[in-house]
Amino acid sequence: MFYIGIDVGGTTVKGAVIDESGGMIAEDSVPTVMGDVAQSIATLTRGLIAKCGGAQIAGIGIGCAGMIDSREGKVVFAGNLDLKDYPLSERVTRETGLPVKITNDANAAALGEAKFGAGKHFKDSILVTLGTGVGGGIVIDGKLYEGFKSAGAEIGHMVIERGGDLCTCGRRGCFEAYSSATALIRRTKWAMEEDAGSKMWTSCTSDTVSGKTAFGFMDSDYSAKQVVDWYIDRLACGLVNLANIFRPQVIMLGGGVSNEGERLLVPLRQKFEKQLFGGTGHAPVALKIASLGNRAGVYGAAALFLED
Amino acid sequence: MFYIGIDVGGTTVKGAVIDESGGMIAEDSVPTVMGDVAQSIATLTRGLIAKCGGAQIAGIGIGCAGMIDSREGKVVFAGNLDLKDYPLSERVTRETGLPVKITNDANAAALGEAKFGAGKHFKDSILVTLGTGVGGGIVIDGKLYEGFKSAGAEIGHMVIERGGDLCTCGRRGCFEAYSSATALIRRTKWAMEEDAGSKMWTSCTSDTVSGKTAFGFMDSDYSAKQVVDWYIDRLACGLVNLANIFRPQVIMLGGGVSNEGERLLVPLRQKFEKQLFGGTGHAPVALKIASLGNRAGVYGAAALFLED
Repeated sequence: MFYIGIDVGGTTVKGAVIDESGGMIAEDSVPTVMGDVAQSIATLTRGLIAKCGGAQIAGIGIGCAGMIDSREGKVVFAGNLDLKDYPLSERVTRETGLPVKITNDANAAALGEAKFGAGKHFKDSILVTLGTGVGGGIVIDGKLYEGFKSAGAEIGHMVIERGGDLCTCGRRGCFEAYSSATALIRRTKWAMEEDAGSKMWTSCTSDTVSGKTAFGFMDSDYSAKQVVDWYIDRLACGLVNLANIFRPQVIMLGGGVSNEGERLLVPLRQKFEKQLFGGTGHAPVALKIASLGNRAGVYGAAALFLED
Repeated sequence: MFYIGIDVGGTTVKGAVIDESGGMIAEDSVPTVMGDVAQSIATLTRGLIAKCGGAQIAGIGIGCAGMIDSREGKVVFAGNLDLKDYPLSERVTRETGLPVKITNDANAAALGEAKFGAGKHFKDSILVTLGTGVGGGIVIDGKLYEGFKSAGAEIGHMVIERGGDLCTCGRRGCFEAYSSATALIRRTKWAMEEDAGSKMWTSCTSDTVSGKTAFGFMDSDYSAKQVVDWYIDRLACGLVNLANIFRPQVIMLGGGVSNEGERLLVPLRQKFEKQLFGGTGHAPVALKIASLGNRAGVYGAAALFLED
């Protein structure tokens, strides 16, 4: 059986044909049509079906940016797609004649990693993406956990430092305000300004600094190492919170910062395991880097038809 | 069909016969036998069956203090019951001939409130108990969520103030370190010492101060009002975190502090709703006081046989 997985972003709609065991048969993308993404998806679907010789498709799964009500099949609100109360499932079914399931893009990525990526050997997993914000999704017993009207799994908006840095959500001290790539870059710039002798200061300008800067200089520059320590302390704090609440078998890290791999993971794991409630003896929690990169979304969207 | 629900605590084992719709047919308790609670449970079960004229019992559900592995039917560790790697389910089945299901006491209370108490009209609910610690349980789609090897749902051990007050778990700044009755009492004592003119200071001694003291004087004493505001700020912070992560339809408050009822709930709800991610329009989260008191555990233990 074949499924189409679609990942709707602000500029591009990506799609793939995927089989039950996670084999990717075909892949394509089209530009996002603002205000009517069903059009983009229908075009993409026709192209994908043609690409794989008219294969029989059992359904289309869609991971879409914005606030999604998966039960109603509706985009409640997606500012960067110019959509409000948009009946996405119904529109795509009308255009394609195929059954449609939807979720938000972060949840789709989490399900993709859970089914076909770093979490495939575990029943309960959490994906935490360290990018512009901190997003992610929760998979319990092979199924996405979305909460009432799909409004849950906002794991970035958990306060870890009451009264701390201002978050985009309006609260202070959210996990996202410390563990996003944005926060890492902000801290790196701050450290560069504090220490004009830093190698970061002599090698970068405020325009070229990125989430990689501090990690890149951590072995040879004290200020860079301090930024990395600062970042990992806070990331560990948020991840231990999630582990104590959910006790999943694995937490996977995705997004830009996760590209640091072992440089991130080794010190993080040490801090994480030290703080885990009840220790690691009875119920250990694995920490891994997500493995599907920016294809996690299309894999997970297709996997909406494969939830246990 | 009838079920027996058992609540095992450090001094007393409570039990009740409960029908499918939550009717309590009989109730009793016996002292806890250290090191072998199966004995206490067997005695209690015989008494309960006799009390209701030999009714046909379909199973025994047990909520037990300590670290429980519900899948294995085992008490992994329970210091105050003198148990370690104790095969509770097997022992009770051997003594009674009945099928047994177990969980920890906090989870049992959460399931009790979800099925027969303040959460009975909702599918997804969280119980947060404000007592010696902050405990509770998570019910998703009518079923307890316990995490890997039942080690999850440690909602009290979520850091909300990094580097803050020391928690019994070894971390600093846990929800429990601010929102337990213990923390409220500690803060009340601190406020009394800071303000010797406070009505709390003239009416209580360090021995008679309780979780009720600050709430009792809040309308007539500035320091008492400040303690209550301090407490509610932190409680709201932790509850919003849980709501953003799970987005349940209801969060129920139990434990000693919840006896303050509306005096707690009205200002708490205001702070909670103001901070909730995405506001209350699309997916509101109700805040309620739990309704079953210290019977929640026996109700929920019986309900282990009634999970959807």
